[in-house]
Amino acid sequence: MKIEYEPIGVVRSPFVESEGTPVQPSRAKNAAGAVELLPEFVEGLSDLDGFSHIILLCHMHKTAAYRLKVTPYLDTQPRGLFATRAPSRPNPIGLSVVELVGIEENWLSIRGVDLLDGTPVLDIKPCVGEFDQRTELRTGWLKNARKKTDVADDRFEK
Amino acid sequence: MKIEYEPIGVVRSPFVESEGTPVQPSRAKNAAGAVELLPEFVEGLSDLDGFSHIILLCHMHKTAAYRLKVTPYLDTQPRGLFATRAPSRPNPIGLSVVELVGIEENWLSIRGVDLLDGTPVLDIKPCVGEFDQRTELRTGWLKNARKKTDVADDRFEK
Repeated sequence: MKIEYEPIGVVRSPFVESEGTPVQPSRAKNAAGAVELLPEFVEGLSDLDGFSHIILLCHMHKTAAYRLKVTPYLDTQPRGLFATRAPSRPNPIGLSVVELVGIEENWLSIRGVDLLDGTPVLDIKPCVGEFDQRTELRTGWLKNARKKTDVADDRFEK
Repeated sequence: MKIEYEPIGVVRSPFVESEGTPVQPSRAKNAAGAVELLPEFVEGLSDLDGFSHIILLCHMHKTAAYRLKVTPYLDTQPRGLFATRAPSRPNPIGLSVVELVGIEENWLSIRGVDLLDGTPVLDIKPCVGEFDQRTELRTGWLKNARKKTDVADDRFEK
């Protein structure tokens, strides 16, 4: 079964290669960027400006082929791929929760961008506490992650 | 630009049609279900059992064509599609945060399922507070959403 998607827009970001790109929005030190939506979708942005944060689902277009065991940026030993947020995945969809700063026609200004410039955007969703947030999360290996880095390197890049 | 994905597994759920299916995991009253992963991906599940919650990205295969203004299940007036979590979207990717109850080979038992039986799974990610959770979210129209329902109907079904 093949599933076919088409980008609805593109990420504009100061980062042009994996090396040095924040590993997550929370480690992006408020890096400013934008989503440039295709003009045909602008009507769908109504009411979005009431939300402080949005969820971006993106196609991680620069990733190398996946492996099922990977050493994450934040650890020193291999982990099961699905227990990590490594960008190289069977379906390389990235999930980023970013701050929505403002909307001007088809241009969404965002803060906390951890994505490469030119990354195709697949979907934009409002971030909603009741839907997306949980208290008392257990976070396995990440709780005591051994590597204290805020930025990526080229290990998952093609 | 076409992006092609293939399912890595399938959702097993008590819900076989949109009507009556919970609108979100948080309204699913702990409905039990599972992800049946394709056996070839089992190695990627290592270390995942340390996490209490996982993020499922799924292809919402039963959705009708999208419209850019929709009346959400939780409101009585049309809203911009990207300001809603309506399943009919240009790229109909559903995002569900569910509780991970246990893993047995390629079978992930989950709680809080809001997905139809047979939904193709595109990705599984660990849910991590630092990456996915934000304090002080503003949530626009949803803050005062006028419709108090926990379940869907067939408005987005094809």
